[in-house]
Amino acid sequence: MTSPKERLRELGITLPAPPPPAASYVQTRLTPIGDGRSLLYIAGQVSADGDRFLTGRCPDEVPVEEAAQRARACALRVLAQVEAAVGLDQVEQLLQVTGWVLSTDDFGDQPKVMNGASELLVEVLGAAGKHTRAAVGASALPFSVTIEIAAVAVVRTG
Amino acid sequence: MTSPKERLRELGITLPAPPPPAASYVQTRLTPIGDGRSLLYIAGQVSADGDRFLTGRCPDEVPVEEAAQRARACALRVLAQVEAAVGLDQVEQLLQVTGWVLSTDDFGDQPKVMNGASELLVEVLGAAGKHTRAAVGASALPFSVTIEIAAVAVVRTG
Amino acid sequence: MTSPKERLRELGITLPAPPPPAASYVQTRLTPIGDGRSLLYIAGQVSADGDRFLTGRCPDEVPVEEAAQRARACALRVLAQVEAAVGLDQVEQLLQVTGWVLSTDDFGDQPKVMNGASELLVEVLGAAGKHTRAAVGASALPFSVTIEIAAVAVVRTG
Repeated sequence: MTSPKERLRELGITLPAPPPPAASYVQTRLTPIGDGRSLLYIAGQVSADGDRFLTGRCPDEVPVEEAAQRARACALRVLAQVEAAVGLDQVEQLLQVTGWVLSTDDFGDQPKVMNGASELLVEVLGAAGKHTRAAVGASALPFSVTIEIAAVAVVRTG
Repeated sequence: MTSPKERLRELGITLPAPPPPAASYVQTRLTPIGDGRSLLYIAGQVSADGDRFLTGRCPDEVPVEEAAQRARACALRVLAQVEAAVGLDQVEQLLQVTGWVLSTDDFGDQPKVMNGASELLVEVLGAAGKHTRAAVGASALPFSVTIEIAAVAVVRTG
Repeated sequence: MTSPKERLRELGITLPAPPPPAASYVQTRLTPIGDGRSLLYIAGQVSADGDRFLTGRCPDEVPVEEAAQRARACALRVLAQVEAAVGLDQVEQLLQVTGWVLSTDDFGDQPKVMNGASELLVEVLGAAGKHTRAAVGASALPFSVTIEIAAVAVVRTG
């Protein structure tokens, strides 16, 4: 069993710095549920490359393949927040991922787009990264980003 | 007190086979919270009849009453996932239901639509089926389905 | 340390009566997680002034500043539900806030709007009121309200 950090290395991925919140909230909240385990809530992470928001509507302005790459970038930011909060090695299970895709009204391939995020999460976290998911379209998102992803995990907090 | 399965029988309802995930995720995630109890997260279930997606926007393409029937069908799929994961008898409380209704911009009867799901959940699970709910409109949903519903429950896992 | 109720008094705020659910669901669900603590799920609270829904799309029909005031009003209703369920003094941590803002397609200032809610929650609950957040746009919401906010908290239930 390789660790999440070894897998990141094998995948040639460097986690981004965990972005600060865009407004009056916090990026993670941790609450114990007994037995040295806690629920970790992760705020909505928007598609961005460093400080530059990745914007535009799918599929007219951003094709599905590119949107899936951006979903992957959002998932990396989810992981960066988990790493900053408790460390990736402490993830017992990712429980819930909610993904909003900025969509034209007739677009229905949100699942393909969100697979970019889901596959990255399992590549890095292994079986612990499997998660339930709701993928939905949105007519408008903060800063007109292409994707926003929020998550809940259960983690070991000793 | 009749059991959920007896109630299904009385209602003349056969649970659908729990559909496999449409993409790279899992349908349920279970995490213990002590005392033989666990949180059960259920992935977004989309409106479908067997393998055929039930698509179209409310109310122009799908009238409210028909959309409420489709919400009920989504809720049956939520129950089918719970049954497959831990068994309906083990539900202590349904905690949270989130419902997205594919809507025209000026449609505001998402609560009426989602009542189709909420009423079914209480008919089958009794008091354990009462739940908090957020019903919202969406401009676009996977495969252009009319409804998507995700849920969280607390269940007995012995 | 002042209590949430003292802070409400200092802020000159009277909590609204907790509105009854608009449909077939309940406003809160409470489930123990051990050690005299429970998860509290709060149903989506819509923007309203007493019985009158506060409707309209941001920013064309409702400017950002007014929408932020309405988000604040939604947050007050979240607090009213918490008070009715367990009492504001019992909040250990607000964990998750999800906010939907009725938006034109090119609107991207949902974070500014939702700050109206987030800031009120921290003003009243102090550090316990800090929360993770997902702010998203919606093309349609129940009764065409401007804002809907759902939340999850961990509370002391002794």
